[in-house]
Amino acid sequence: MSLLEDGLPMAVPAAGLPARVRIHEVGARDGLQNEKAVVPVEIKAEFIRRLAQAGLTTIEATSFVHPKWVPQLADAEQLVPLLDGVDAELPVLVPNERGLDRAIALGVRRIAVFGSATETFAQRNLNRTVEESLAMFQPVVARAREAGLHVRGYLSMCFGDPWEGPVPVSQVVSVAHRLMELGCDELSLGDTIGVATPGHVRQLLTRLGEAGVPTERLAVHFHDTYGQALANTLAALEHGVTCVDASAGGLGGCPYAKSATGNLATEDLVWMLHGLGIETGVDLGRLTATSVWMAAHLGRPSPSRTVRALSQKES
Amino acid sequence: MSLLEDGLPMAVPAAGLPARVRIHEVGARDGLQNEKAVVPVEIKAEFIRRLAQAGLTTIEATSFVHPKWVPQLADAEQLVPLLDGVDAELPVLVPNERGLDRAIALGVRRIAVFGSATETFAQRNLNRTVEESLAMFQPVVARAREAGLHVRGYLSMCFGDPWEGPVPVSQVVSVAHRLMELGCDELSLGDTIGVATPGHVRQLLTRLGEAGVPTERLAVHFHDTYGQALANTLAALEHGVTCVDASAGGLGGCPYAKSATGNLATEDLVWMLHGLGIETGVDLGRLTATSVWMAAHLGRPSPSRTVRALSQKES
Repeated sequence: MSLLEDGLPMAVPAAGLPARVRIHEVGARDGLQNEKAVVPVEIKAEFIRRLAQAGLTTIEATSFVHPKWVPQLADAEQLVPLLDGVDAELPVLVPNERGLDRAIALGVRRIAVFGSATETFAQRNLNRTVEESLAMFQPVVARAREAGLHVRGYLSMCFGDPWEGPVPVSQVVSVAHRLMELGCDELSLGDTIGVATPGHVRQLLTRLGEAGVPTERLAVHFHDTYGQALANTLAALEHGVTCVDASAGGLGGCPYAKSATGNLATEDLVWMLHGLGIETGVDLGRLTATSVWMAAHLGRPSPSRTVRALSQKES
Repeated sequence: MSLLEDGLPMAVPAAGLPARVRIHEVGARDGLQNEKAVVPVEIKAEFIRRLAQAGLTTIEATSFVHPKWVPQLADAEQLVPLLDGVDAELPVLVPNERGLDRAIALGVRRIAVFGSATETFAQRNLNRTVEESLAMFQPVVARAREAGLHVRGYLSMCFGDPWEGPVPVSQVVSVAHRLMELGCDELSLGDTIGVATPGHVRQLLTRLGEAGVPTERLAVHFHDTYGQALANTLAALEHGVTCVDASAGGLGGCPYAKSATGNLATEDLVWMLHGLGIETGVDLGRLTATSVWMAAHLGRPSPSRTVRALSQKES
């Protein structure tokens, strides 16, 4: 029996929510970057192709950081040409001008830079102060926009930081505002360690609005470390956010071992959105089948509850 | 490092939510009843004692159904006397007058009856029509109230049913209303197969209010099969519900195998409530330690994301 065929999730719209949400799929990048296994480049390309066929329209493909830092994505140069003809936007991460040059040379149309709301994470992730990292992004964003590229800014540690604890909202608003001033087209607010709760989400979104950052240019990026990602997403939708980051199958978080820091699973998100009557364009059955297929390559079941529930029904 | 000691979750209240929520802990009953392993009665008593010490004030202890149906809880008669002196309300499930007699003989002060919103589940779970089951509960509730007992009504399959698919709201409201008319002090709305989404929750609560069922006598009972339980809980809190059912450590749902139909984990719930500045009286560290201890007895890790995240920090 497949519950999907029985008309579930049943669509019951709720007042005050958007009619349509764009999902920014990060499984191939944020997901695979945090998996132990290094996935062959052909499998990555096939994964992205299947995600597009499942109806995802924005699929972050890879990262042009130095291979030394992220060996899982060292094949970025090989991957991008394999994605010719995939019917989706395929943004890539670039940390600096050298990364931008490599992306532009490959014909990439969308890039993302990744900033930090906290000094400790800026030092650990970028080996720079927050100020120095913004200075590094400035020419990247400027040149990307000159070249007609769409630029996303990521802001990590918007709610809590493993070294600094709770992060003051004023500090997040300040860095967010700076990233938008650099010329980012959209800004993704990251709860990198998954500690946010819905009131905190509302507070940050309200304060960003007061500071002049338009809600329609914001995305939310929740990790499900404490099981809060979907409740936080609901709070963001209630505030008017219409772009949500998620990772197919919850890639990037292992359900068993030491790392439980996975992204919100796209399937769990789609179940909620479709249950709320919100359009996504995604075929949940095809998406789930893709995550089951990828889980087989990784040699372990998906941590997504929706994937587990639907795939056990199919078996 | 313990994030709990670092002031996380950070309390950021949100407008329109209750100041305090009572958690109805179901791990010892709904949880253990759905675990393969039969836990020794002394371990169950110690589990309940530790849950009370962690600050839980209502802990469903066991069920007086026939042992043939639920062998995991066949020791109800032995368990209740072991709980003397536990500082919490300790309701037990009773299906019929014989169960009520056994409970009263043991000095139990709170009972629960369990109805179904759908005919198929009433037949499978109670071997009766919905109407016949209400007729069976009538003398149970009446006699329990005469004896001064608090009576909870459970209503299963309020959102979807594995055989019937989506369940019409009018049907749920009708059975809910009948259970309240019988004299139940509170009514717990069960999403037994975890298919609800937040708009559906709001709709059912609104319709129950319109039908004259007071929100302050309602509890919500979500299963996390599709990862929706906490988002659904948020929707219920926004509607004014102040009693939430949850299972310590997410007991009752196996993270690996065929059954992924666990209850909302109490720890994930407490993380959200405390993050929202909502009082629960629960010590999250002690509760997590209790779930880790119980997981060791069951021989597998807890499916609660909060338990996994906090316990890996402590190790």
